Amino acid sequence: MKSYVVAVVGATGLVGTEMIQTLERRKFPVKKLLPLASEKSKGKQVRFNGQSIAVEVLNDDAFAGVDYALFSAGGSVSERFAASAVRHGAIVIDNTSFFRMHEDVPLVVPEVNAAALRDHNGIIANPNCSTAQLVVALKPIHDAAQITRVIISTYQAVSGAGKLAMEGLEAETKCYVAGEKSMPQAFPYPIAFNLIPQIDKFQDNGYTKEEMKMVQETKKILGDSSILVTATCVRVPVLNSHSVSVTVETKKKLTVLECRTLLEKAPGLVVQDDPAKGVFPMPILASETDPVYVGRIREDLAFENGLSMWIVADNLRKGAALNAVQIAETMIQN
Amino acid sequence: MKSYVVAVVGATGLVGTEMIQTLERRKFPVKKLLPLASEKSKGKQVRFNGQSIAVEVLNDDAFAGVDYALFSAGGSVSERFAASAVRHGAIVIDNTSFFRMHEDVPLVVPEVNAAALRDHNGIIANPNCSTAQLVVALKPIHDAAQITRVIISTYQAVSGAGKLAMEGLEAETKCYVAGEKSMPQAFPYPIAFNLIPQIDKFQDNGYTKEEMKMVQETKKILGDSSILVTATCVRVPVLNSHSVSVTVETKKKLTVLECRTLLEKAPGLVVQDDPAKGVFPMPILASETDPVYVGRIREDLAFENGLSMWIVADNLRKGAALNAVQIAETMIQN
Repeated sequence: MKSYVVAVVGATGLVGTEMIQTLERRKFPVKKLLPLASEKSKGKQVRFNGQSIAVEVLNDDAFAGVDYALFSAGGSVSERFAASAVRHGAIVIDNTSFFRMHEDVPLVVPEVNAAALRDHNGIIANPNCSTAQLVVALKPIHDAAQITRVIISTYQAVSGAGKLAMEGLEAETKCYVAGEKSMPQAFPYPIAFNLIPQIDKFQDNGYTKEEMKMVQETKKILGDSSILVTATCVRVPVLNSHSVSVTVETKKKLTVLECRTLLEKAPGLVVQDDPAKGVFPMPILASETDPVYVGRIREDLAFENGLSMWIVADNLRKGAALNAVQIAETMIQN
Repeated sequence: MKSYVVAVVGATGLVGTEMIQTLERRKFPVKKLLPLASEKSKGKQVRFNGQSIAVEVLNDDAFAGVDYALFSAGGSVSERFAASAVRHGAIVIDNTSFFRMHEDVPLVVPEVNAAALRDHNGIIANPNCSTAQLVVALKPIHDAAQITRVIISTYQAVSGAGKLAMEGLEAETKCYVAGEKSMPQAFPYPIAFNLIPQIDKFQDNGYTKEEMKMVQETKKILGDSSILVTATCVRVPVLNSHSVSVTVETKKKLTVLECRTLLEKAPGLVVQDDPAKGVFPMPILASETDPVYVGRIREDLAFENGLSMWIVADNLRKGAALNAVQIAETMIQN
């Protein structure tokens, strides 16, 4: 069996760590793992398949011999170094937002649009975390009934903002319990016992970049720019796993039963939907698992052809590391 | 100046306590305060205007001489005792859901539909907490542009579930910080660092009672059953103040500027909407204050005539105690 040299850029970050663990857990055929990071991480080691591997400093020549380069070190790092990786013959799978809306860069969730992988120039983009879990649930509905409108409100965990944000929520919580005043750490406001209706910067239209990512990426991944999408993205005091409340309007009427049956058969999805028995998706259940969970499926009361549902997934896995590794898996299979 | 005998039923609960504090803070003309509760609270005292007042046990004869009886001790208590209060000549202002949808009971948010107070049979209903804050923001929009559709996702604090729920979140949080396992206390699942997409019981249509309250009460208070309303209600690990993400479709186009100007002039509302400067409503800012805060006002991307916004208020105040006292204030003014 063929095996591959895999570089992970941002290897010491939350998503980078999860990428390395995902490669191991899914037994991706790794000939050699190359953990790359900035000068700051010099001297650090990562664990992979029982071994300690020294983190190397990212530079233009680091990609010699690399087959797949998984980037998750911020948009500016991808902007600066993706071309070097491609020049060395690597396929870049980029978890940042930098290339996502580039016309010649496929934006891929393998369960949804694996076919888009056929045509690329060396760079594949991994979608925004909330978008990835959303489209896994929307795809079967769109195929069956043609989605016309999507109204989204998110409940996003702090892990989406990185390791410091998780540590920040924990530190703020400890201060609260100790009766001490705490300074907000990773966000401009406290997040413990609070909600922050801002993720990423504001745009001129009053939406945040995070919200516009959901709007644009949903259309690109579903391959249908006619779908009307709107989003409100909110940071909540949850450590890990994003939740999405969504109302979907379709051209063709889909009953709850038809929708549930479709979603039960769909790849990557687990239907958790028996409310009378207290069965519905929740962050604490989704964390550290691979699937996208969907529940609270019901006829929407504001649309003739509408469905409402609640979608939860581990944003570090399906929202980031898992999806990136699945892209690589799909490419080596084809 | 005329003054009144005011009974508070459920005087030792979270909302009852807030009602007594609100009567004091707003200098409601109280001749005598009569705190009522179940046998369990026998021997307890409440503080009012610098005095300690013994809690009395609720019974059918407790309402002799009472002018206003503010109920907040659960629907079954209102069902059982409201008629006794009315028989004794009291006006009942009921914070439970029991009477809200009764045809001959006005459901009132004074800023929105004070006129409904003109015609009653001794019982006035106080709306569901999330609904109260929502309609304060919707009313000016409905008057100006006729709302056709409302899509709601809530982020509801644990204080909405009472004192034990607040203590439960704090206890779970302490266990987490101490590295101990905790049992969920007031909810069927842990709420610390989690989200529970269920508030109140599930109905046959897949919606919870809380969601259906928002759907039905919004129409009743706005006095327009043609508005299409849908809701997803979610419990979040916030101690106090509910938040609502809402998309509103209107018949007439309303620009963001027109909407903001309307809301700035509306009673009971404070517009907190300067995102570039990090100004938007948040639970920690709203808690222990009276207004309904609205921000993130922007053109909705999924509707030709649509607006999205984010509405936060102290659910114990505008969502419960404050609104009840405002109803009494409005009645003594008329």
